[in-house]
Amino acid sequence: MPKFPEFADRLGQLRGSVFEKFLPKMREKGDALVKLHIGDSYLPPPYELPIHSQFLSEHPFFNRYCNTMGVQELREVLADKVSQDNQIPVDRDDVMMTCGASNALNVSMLSLVNPGEEVLVLTPCWPFFPGMVKVAGGKVVEAPVYMELYDNPELDLSAYLEKFITNKTVLLYLNTPNNPSGKVLREDHLAAVCDVVQRHNLWLVSDEAYDGMTFGENKHISIARMPGMFERTLSIFTFSKVYMFAGLRLGYIAAPNAILKHLNKMLVHQLYSPSTLAQQMMVAPVKTREDWHRDFVQHCYSLRDIFTQELQAPYHHPEGAYYLFFSVKDLLQGRDYWALIDECLEIGVSIAPGNDFGKGFEDYIRICFAGEPPERLEIAVKRLNDVLLGM
Amino acid sequence: MPKFPEFADRLGQLRGSVFEKFLPKMREKGDALVKLHIGDSYLPPPYELPIHSQFLSEHPFFNRYCNTMGVQELREVLADKVSQDNQIPVDRDDVMMTCGASNALNVSMLSLVNPGEEVLVLTPCWPFFPGMVKVAGGKVVEAPVYMELYDNPELDLSAYLEKFITNKTVLLYLNTPNNPSGKVLREDHLAAVCDVVQRHNLWLVSDEAYDGMTFGENKHISIARMPGMFERTLSIFTFSKVYMFAGLRLGYIAAPNAILKHLNKMLVHQLYSPSTLAQQMMVAPVKTREDWHRDFVQHCYSLRDIFTQELQAPYHHPEGAYYLFFSVKDLLQGRDYWALIDECLEIGVSIAPGNDFGKGFEDYIRICFAGEPPERLEIAVKRLNDVLLGM
Repeated sequence: MPKFPEFADRLGQLRGSVFEKFLPKMREKGDALVKLHIGDSYLPPPYELPIHSQFLSEHPFFNRYCNTMGVQELREVLADKVSQDNQIPVDRDDVMMTCGASNALNVSMLSLVNPGEEVLVLTPCWPFFPGMVKVAGGKVVEAPVYMELYDNPELDLSAYLEKFITNKTVLLYLNTPNNPSGKVLREDHLAAVCDVVQRHNLWLVSDEAYDGMTFGENKHISIARMPGMFERTLSIFTFSKVYMFAGLRLGYIAAPNAILKHLNKMLVHQLYSPSTLAQQMMVAPVKTREDWHRDFVQHCYSLRDIFTQELQAPYHHPEGAYYLFFSVKDLLQGRDYWALIDECLEIGVSIAPGNDFGKGFEDYIRICFAGEPPERLEIAVKRLNDVLLGM
Repeated sequence: MPKFPEFADRLGQLRGSVFEKFLPKMREKGDALVKLHIGDSYLPPPYELPIHSQFLSEHPFFNRYCNTMGVQELREVLADKVSQDNQIPVDRDDVMMTCGASNALNVSMLSLVNPGEEVLVLTPCWPFFPGMVKVAGGKVVEAPVYMELYDNPELDLSAYLEKFITNKTVLLYLNTPNNPSGKVLREDHLAAVCDVVQRHNLWLVSDEAYDGMTFGENKHISIARMPGMFERTLSIFTFSKVYMFAGLRLGYIAAPNAILKHLNKMLVHQLYSPSTLAQQMMVAPVKTREDWHRDFVQHCYSLRDIFTQELQAPYHHPEGAYYLFFSVKDLLQGRDYWALIDECLEIGVSIAPGNDFGKGFEDYIRICFAGEPPERLEIAVKRLNDVLLGM
């Protein structure tokens, strides 16, 4: 049973780069080395690209394979970002670029979970995560935590989680700020998670896709900054949410380099590396994040209010992320759940059904309040009220 | 034992999109539908990007999630390309975009191969492919074909391959034009492969990363265009080679939509989709490929000649791709193989060691002749000759 710090057996079947042992000599030779070992073309693409010529001339390797751990310049600014904003003690080797947070989560599951082992998934959770555990052959054990913490913030979370641990549990999956519930875990909640994870010697995967996306007094705390946690935590970030660039498919894992080196073998076998060009394009936005990122979070706060001021449903005020997640059980008035979803579509509003987010949420719906402009959200909330109130 | 047309068991554990059944209604509603079901932001990124403003305004969804099968406009031009250039009978639904050919191969293995099943890999082969089979729990069976066909082009390939088939074989992996050997299979060779694959009811994965990259009279023939093959073949292409854009990490699979729909469940669990922006950027280059792609192939032909005219080693003239692959056994003169590789580095040339490409190639080396400009290749071949001739 591989628990921390052991990896999944399948990783042992993958070879790392044969060039690893030659790297010092290759670095020493520098530009004098004629590189015939990589299958790549030395010329830039001969067709026109919609990219500023100055950027291309400043990044002559934009079209070529990059280091499979990521573009060095971006890893460096992200290491600074994670150190400063998240207070996780990383240096530049402790960052590995991935094709979105999705890819980071998938690489993590295949690298850490053996068939038959259990992954404790705090729910409601992002719908694709349980499938990733299953692809690795693992068993998903769901612990319904986030909605419970709205109702009962003083819950003894350590004792509560303890009930779900077995001798097959190898990893805990945490996601705060949480999609879909909007819950942001407090420091004492995170301390309870640390307690369980350390006591049972589990790996921790901390999905921080909504890093920075919190409202009012709620603050996101990265669990890897807590005592004894960095060494066993994969902290996973993305450019899809606060950076508003889901279409770039870029994310990263912050963790000790000794762990990332192992995970990199799996990444290389999935897609070699994420896009060189995409990584080069994100260096400046990371550096300038202080100039722009608060405006978007503040704007989402106001989008949230469009819903919370009008919606006729028993919701909790989201503390972070950009979703409302609530049960419609008491609003069905004899209607079938799926008939209600269909009524929403019929009146012109699409929502995400609750059963994708875990067991026990079959009568919930999730609303994203960041994907449409304010004037359309206002229309949507009126339409939703009509359906929910059966008008 | 899942042979064609059965998929790997693990696919059965993954759910497709819950929106599948609602799609007709969602399409019918069009722009009137307020979309609250996707976790995405409606605003463009607030930071500067090095992309032409006209392109961005013509592609307002550049930063957002795309259809997980790919950007429709690109799938359409690629379907035209595959129909015309490769003569594979596809329509636009028969193309799925991936994060490079690597990702396409990995998704294919996880979707088609169960633990314990055998994959027949024609060697020498691309070094990462065997690892992908292993991650799926499959067993790699190597058939050393490509170098054999240089020595013996009239080989009875069907009978030769037959020896490697067992009752556990589920899939054959073909790669022509071949990396690393530069071998391009003739139509009669491909007919022999078809014969074996159809007789044993195998899946066929046709890695066509070097599509279009052939020299002189050698022509690349896509095996999926041969009788009875389209239905069981995944034809895999990339933008990394002839498009000279490995740093974009974009590729695609051409296959019947009914198969791709299943593979898409695996892709979504690996990385959701490849980059929206990357896909949008490649529409024009695919449309204009006739204007530019022959120049690069012709240029590679001349780069090849720099090596073949000077190299003092027992190589075969590559028929396609951009590599030379040959044994240095008779040039070792008592030296250890790895000492020779180290000598090459010491004198300023990096080459890829043969053992990464399959069993029996431990004393081979691979040279890429497209990754450095002509003047540096000329230096490299002189340096290599010095090492190989022990001067």
